[in-house]
Amino acid sequence: MAGFTEATAVSAGAAELDPQWTVGGRPNGGYLLALLARAAVTTAHPHPLSASAVYLSPPAPGPAAVEVEALRDGRSFSQARARLTQQGRTCVEALFTLGDLAAAGDPHFVAAAPPAVADRDTLPRTPVEPPGAGVRITMLEMVDQRIDLTAGPGDLRGWLSFADGTPFDAFSLLYAVDAFPPATFTLGSSGWTPTLELTAYVRGLPAPGPLRVRQHARMVTDSQLDQVCEVWDSTGRVVAQATQLAIHRKS
Amino acid sequence: MAGFTEATAVSAGAAELDPQWTVGGRPNGGYLLALLARAAVTTAHPHPLSASAVYLSPPAPGPAAVEVEALRDGRSFSQARARLTQQGRTCVEALFTLGDLAAAGDPHFVAAAPPAVADRDTLPRTPVEPPGAGVRITMLEMVDQRIDLTAGPGDLRGWLSFADGTPFDAFSLLYAVDAFPPATFTLGSSGWTPTLELTAYVRGLPAPGPLRVRQHARMVTDSQLDQVCEVWDSTGRVVAQATQLAIHRKS
Repeated sequence: MAGFTEATAVSAGAAELDPQWTVGGRPNGGYLLALLARAAVTTAHPHPLSASAVYLSPPAPGPAAVEVEALRDGRSFSQARARLTQQGRTCVEALFTLGDLAAAGDPHFVAAAPPAVADRDTLPRTPVEPPGAGVRITMLEMVDQRIDLTAGPGDLRGWLSFADGTPFDAFSLLYAVDAFPPATFTLGSSGWTPTLELTAYVRGLPAPGPLRVRQHARMVTDSQLDQVCEVWDSTGRVVAQATQLAIHRKS
Repeated sequence: MAGFTEATAVSAGAAELDPQWTVGGRPNGGYLLALLARAAVTTAHPHPLSASAVYLSPPAPGPAAVEVEALRDGRSFSQARARLTQQGRTCVEALFTLGDLAAAGDPHFVAAAPPAVADRDTLPRTPVEPPGAGVRITMLEMVDQRIDLTAGPGDLRGWLSFADGTPFDAFSLLYAVDAFPPATFTLGSSGWTPTLELTAYVRGLPAPGPLRVRQHARMVTDSQLDQVCEVWDSTGRVVAQATQLAIHRKS
């Protein structure tokens, strides 16, 4: 089993999409975004600050190509576009703002208090084949995900960590914002919700320890869903926030 | 004075950036995003559902070129990339999901209640040269913006309408989510906040009448700011939501 860093490596424009980081046999969207971010960063700007992707066609595990085009190279920030293709088909295209999170400075205003979540020890680890899910969530072999369903409809909260204890970094946070089930899970809808667009802001380098995650739906129609995912580190600091527009099929 | 629709027209890849839709002489970022969206939509998919832009270099009013590349053409949705260039320099690049909002169906779950805002009639219209702003906000000749500062630090609420009564549409909503002052305005900081990334989801076609707008800061450091902007129509339905990552210079 490859760790997350190994599974998101890109070398000379070539990547190997890992079968481990899949849901129903398809690579997870946050995993793909992290892989593109690793290809886009530079020595001067080693972290993704913003990442916005459109998902065009789901790739399969196996070889893929990554192209990066620099769009702007500034002193404090740079910006780039990255594209994942497989057998000549474009699967994901993403725009990045890159910078150095270690130089971002401490926050002097924060309006993102960590939400109440049941103690991690009291929640069960989500199994790889959850009853009723209808798909094998292979990536859950690698991550310990615990979900608290008591917050109310459309509001999933819980904890996320790597099963082997690997701490999160600026790249795996892009996975974390797309790791939880869709918030429609609590709305009597267990259908597929393929992502159309995902935008994530990485707002800080996370302290080691489990992440606190909140995923909540904003508006759900018979055709689309938009949801917000926020992530706090073990010190209670908000480290990532994301929004996602997804296809929603009534089920 | 050109109306918003005329000012965002793109014909055969050529646009004329209107001096009317500027702040401190530079075209507003939401105005530019609306212009790119108009170039990206198609007959089958006439509305932007998601729009994610990176801002690379501020253009000046005057001629600009717009290139659009189709990325995916599906039955219910399509996706495209658009780029604004001026004198060979790329100024903005954006990714779009396109569809038909008239076919989206009514929402069956909404967790985005309209916030309390003081009655529109009791709030003053923001002047074109607000005291202390240090810049001329020329676009405020065209829009009637009224701001309620009583909600607390980092939380701006208010009303937005076109001064000539033109109703908002799916394109001008992309302007609306970037029209308000930065939420840092209420945090003792009046400095520039150039946008790095803006993502907006248009969630419904707005009913006629003034829009209710909430812009709130999430985290502010000495180098960056991220804020959320949400927009409701006159019937209280959420019609757009956006997040923005911006440069923040302490002032």
